Amino acid sequence: MTAPAAATPPPVPARDFAGVFARVAPHMAALDSFLRGQLEAFEPEIRAMADYCIDTSGKRIRPALVFFSGWQSAASTPSRDLVQVAAVVELVHLATLVHDDIMDEAEVRRARPTASRQYGPAAAVLLGDALFAHALHLAALFPTTEVCRAVSESTRRVCAGEIMQTLRRRSVSITRADYDRVIDLKTAELFRVSCALGARLGGHPDAFVADAARFGRHLGIAYQIYDDLADFFGREHRIGKTLGTDLASGKLTLPLLLLRDRLAPTERKTLDEELLGQALPRLELRLSQMEQLGVFDDVVAEIEAELAPAEAALARHPGLAPIEHLAALPRVLRAQVAALR
Amino acid sequence: MTAPAAATPPPVPARDFAGVFARVAPHMAALDSFLRGQLEAFEPEIRAMADYCIDTSGKRIRPALVFFSGWQSAASTPSRDLVQVAAVVELVHLATLVHDDIMDEAEVRRARPTASRQYGPAAAVLLGDALFAHALHLAALFPTTEVCRAVSESTRRVCAGEIMQTLRRRSVSITRADYDRVIDLKTAELFRVSCALGARLGGHPDAFVADAARFGRHLGIAYQIYDDLADFFGREHRIGKTLGTDLASGKLTLPLLLLRDRLAPTERKTLDEELLGQALPRLELRLSQMEQLGVFDDVVAEIEAELAPAEAALARHPGLAPIEHLAALPRVLRAQVAALR
Repeated sequence: MTAPAAATPPPVPARDFAGVFARVAPHMAALDSFLRGQLEAFEPEIRAMADYCIDTSGKRIRPALVFFSGWQSAASTPSRDLVQVAAVVELVHLATLVHDDIMDEAEVRRARPTASRQYGPAAAVLLGDALFAHALHLAALFPTTEVCRAVSESTRRVCAGEIMQTLRRRSVSITRADYDRVIDLKTAELFRVSCALGARLGGHPDAFVADAARFGRHLGIAYQIYDDLADFFGREHRIGKTLGTDLASGKLTLPLLLLRDRLAPTERKTLDEELLGQALPRLELRLSQMEQLGVFDDVVAEIEAELAPAEAALARHPGLAPIEHLAALPRVLRAQVAALR
Repeated sequence: MTAPAAATPPPVPARDFAGVFARVAPHMAALDSFLRGQLEAFEPEIRAMADYCIDTSGKRIRPALVFFSGWQSAASTPSRDLVQVAAVVELVHLATLVHDDIMDEAEVRRARPTASRQYGPAAAVLLGDALFAHALHLAALFPTTEVCRAVSESTRRVCAGEIMQTLRRRSVSITRADYDRVIDLKTAELFRVSCALGARLGGHPDAFVADAARFGRHLGIAYQIYDDLADFFGREHRIGKTLGTDLASGKLTLPLLLLRDRLAPTERKTLDEELLGQALPRLELRLSQMEQLGVFDDVVAEIEAELAPAEAALARHPGLAPIEHLAALPRVLRAQVAALR
């Protein structure tokens, strides 16, 4: 006779991601332990470098999506499969961060020197490769090829999105369709596959796996739009992150796209000069113009327009174990957006 | 009743790799066609960039190792499995070349601008990633996880070897053990896995798969030592490749290691200054010293010391279909080494 699952109180509404992720604290601890154990697999000469990248200070959103999508009951211990696939998506994400920081010539991430700064860009290119390769190796350790197929395809799509974004730096001919395509690939893809694989490995029905994928994709798009808005309107809760980096680096994100469309031709010309690196960026001016011209509100509406289908995907599976946890994420993202005001 | 295999004349002894590889010309044509077909899998926005990297001008040594190790009979057409795994190892190799050229700031490869030069280093980092990811995706399309496991682990080891080499640039405290370790990882590993997977997918016995792996590893080590020697003693047959790049970039390869050991302390000091980038490299002087101090002959002996166990691994499988083809490779490498004189 098996013990009945312990009755647990309903989760407390959380206002930030840390609050929601506290519900999977044992899973996150198991993930950290698993990732530390993986260091053994790296050649001794590069183990310390891999360790440096696999730090524990990130938000770990993608692993949380795996754990929530694969949720069975509060009484269940984190399954080895879910922990392993969470490690795969997090390692892919960490590898992209290592390579992003080389391209952005970033000096600091999470209050520490970036790998590129610490070991030099050349070693960082290869270190990112080694992290990618190890992620795919972990994916290949599942009994079937399903995880490896999904993750390798997602990784290629993430890279394609980042290539497009890189090639479009300091260009002012970017359309809304270009922006949508880039964030769908560079961010939403890994959110999507995290939810799909979590739901699959959690043993949930195929119909939910498909809807978890849809949820992840729309949440990922919404999250990236929020992140792009926060690059302008972030406040003290985002301490340690410089504001206005997208304007300074000539990255035409949604707030800038909408602002640019609404400016008079002469004003648009000066914004273009800032984006093209021909004039110093005037962040304060652009922020006040965004407020005056309703850009902030319209970007928030775009976030809502993605959260609606995300929530609709969940609504098709009332009572399924993952739902209450996944449903908290759009609510938290709304609270984060509201806090930007 | 099946048609008997056509009697084929014994292969003509070849003096260079192109001569040997002509025996698998239909396989190479099938590989090219397969690789072209893979471009469809890349996002349309990055297809032209992927196409640029998947050029057909390389030697394709690793695919040849796959085809020879998986050889069944001259009458057999190239199997889809062998072509696919040849594409996997070649894509991994091409990805490492794209990243190597970023780190070396190389302008030209195979008589064309490098991807880094053509698209910028930032896009080239991501393009290499996309090629890696697609290689692993093709590996994951096999029915079992065996290919994906082997290739992802090899890829991580190749990257580890390249990281070590990168971090040891402009260092004069490198030991022979360091050098051996780096070439075992950065070159021999992919030769080894090419032979092992070719033999496996060709349906050969387990004992041959293990010996094919040993053959590939020792051939890979010998090949890299030859390549390092050719960086000093290459002649007109290596047109298009600058000589002395390892001395100029401070890479302490075997010829330099042996020379350094044999120089008197004052002469060693001036060589160290060249390796450390504190003095202009004197290639002609170092070449004549290598000749006088017997470095050339001793490096050749080291190549022979690797070809012996490579050939011994083949000798354990007399009459097996791959043997006559694989056995041609050490002979060709010897001829290439002899041509350096």
